Amino acid sequence: MEIIRSISGMREFSSDCLQSNKSIGLVPTMGALHEGHLSIVRQSTEANDITVVSIFINPAQFSEGEDFSRYPRDYDGDISKLSALSAAAVFMPEAADIYPDGYKTYVEVRGLSERLCGMFRPGHFTGVATVVLKLFNAVRPTRAYFGLKDYQQCAVLKKMRDDLNLDCEIVLCPTVREADGLAMSSRNAYLSMEQRLDAPCIYKALKDTGHAIKNGSLKIKDIAAKLHETLSAVKSITEIQYASAYDPDTLDEITHGARVLIAVAVKMGATRLIDNIVVEL
Amino acid sequence: MEIIRSISGMREFSSDCLQSNKSIGLVPTMGALHEGHLSIVRQSTEANDITVVSIFINPAQFSEGEDFSRYPRDYDGDISKLSALSAAAVFMPEAADIYPDGYKTYVEVRGLSERLCGMFRPGHFTGVATVVLKLFNAVRPTRAYFGLKDYQQCAVLKKMRDDLNLDCEIVLCPTVREADGLAMSSRNAYLSMEQRLDAPCIYKALKDTGHAIKNGSLKIKDIAAKLHETLSAVKSITEIQYASAYDPDTLDEITHGARVLIAVAVKMGATRLIDNIVVEL
Repeated sequence: MEIIRSISGMREFSSDCLQSNKSIGLVPTMGALHEGHLSIVRQSTEANDITVVSIFINPAQFSEGEDFSRYPRDYDGDISKLSALSAAAVFMPEAADIYPDGYKTYVEVRGLSERLCGMFRPGHFTGVATVVLKLFNAVRPTRAYFGLKDYQQCAVLKKMRDDLNLDCEIVLCPTVREADGLAMSSRNAYLSMEQRLDAPCIYKALKDTGHAIKNGSLKIKDIAAKLHETLSAVKSITEIQYASAYDPDTLDEITHGARVLIAVAVKMGATRLIDNIVVEL
Repeated sequence: MEIIRSISGMREFSSDCLQSNKSIGLVPTMGALHEGHLSIVRQSTEANDITVVSIFINPAQFSEGEDFSRYPRDYDGDISKLSALSAAAVFMPEAADIYPDGYKTYVEVRGLSERLCGMFRPGHFTGVATVVLKLFNAVRPTRAYFGLKDYQQCAVLKKMRDDLNLDCEIVLCPTVREADGLAMSSRNAYLSMEQRLDAPCIYKALKDTGHAIKNGSLKIKDIAAKLHETLSAVKSITEIQYASAYDPDTLDEITHGARVLIAVAVKMGATRLIDNIVVEL
């Protein structure tokens, strides 16, 4: 497995692949890899000749006061996990290579970026869209893989791909969960024992709400109230940032419809957890 | 000469070129082609196997109240001029293909975009950067050509190219002038006889100021005052938007330096004219 540390090195590597007509799968990550990431890597290695996993903790997607400096880092562990799969290369650029002095160019996906998480993390999705476009230009993937746990991120990136006429298929991968239902996330490592025991309540609330609208005992317009009632009763949850029903395409809050995104962001102390499901009625 | 009217058609055309290892030169224009454009097209046909000229009056780079609807259009004339050169293709997409319903993604080159023309045309350079990135993704040029009359546009696009790691050489082409010195521009067609007779004063003021700082009779810090004095004496000039000395790289206003961008934007009635020179001391 090759470890590539510069954009120019990455471009050389991908030029070679493209010249020999090999398809490239890109799995962008911020490292601290868990089974959620690894299942995505396996999906990529099955569909592409070459899989590149990028590990880059992107400063542009963290706001002031967020957890950039304490975000979990485990480069050695990550590399040994990826070696065990058939990833061809790990792309680990330096921040100074991605954002050199005087860096000024940002990609804004307006509208989609300002809803849900965007209301609580101003600039977050501009940072995400910008770094992903730069990764695309360095890696030139045939397909790029993203986890549906970050549903809004998937929506923003698909919109960017369509709007900018990018030549890359975007593949969305199902959320991988712990045995008790908690969505896997590198940030789960922040949780205290008590918080960790409470955390599966989020997925349970999503699932219960999903069942209730499917069997007709709950209306879409009542989802938000139901989720707030359930989640506010959980001791470890100190803040509910959003919890409601949304249009899966526009992310507008909805009161009716045939497909419903039910999405939640809560804080347990300093730790922010998100999760979502999409229900077809 | 092929006339291509859709992004998908353009991508097909460029895929064929790239597969046969042909270099592609792109000359983005808004049509109403004059000798300034044509000299750029010739520069591209000399350096590239294939030259694509795009003609697209980009609504995203016009502000409310600007001249989008009355911008000169001469598609038949443009096509016959380009046929006479060896341009391989004209790319004339529809606005609905470039900006379909629900379009949301914009590229911002912060800082550079807000100075000079950006102060008077809010959003203009975001519109320019966005459409040029989309043209790059449709045409996939080896080299793209821009005229230095739009100096700030050149600076913004080079910055975007560097920041986003785009795989395209940007070639800047010298301003082409009428016999009396007026920089060629499609907007010159708006000028009345009297305005047209006064218009060469802009380049004359730039040149005189350039000579004066070169021979030491004027200091860089006094350029702005000198230009304002000269230009405000011209009857047809109804507004001086900016006229000063700038750093050619950062576009910061400067009072000293070894390279000086002297740039001017004025209005003659409803018509806005810009021009610039770079002086090496």
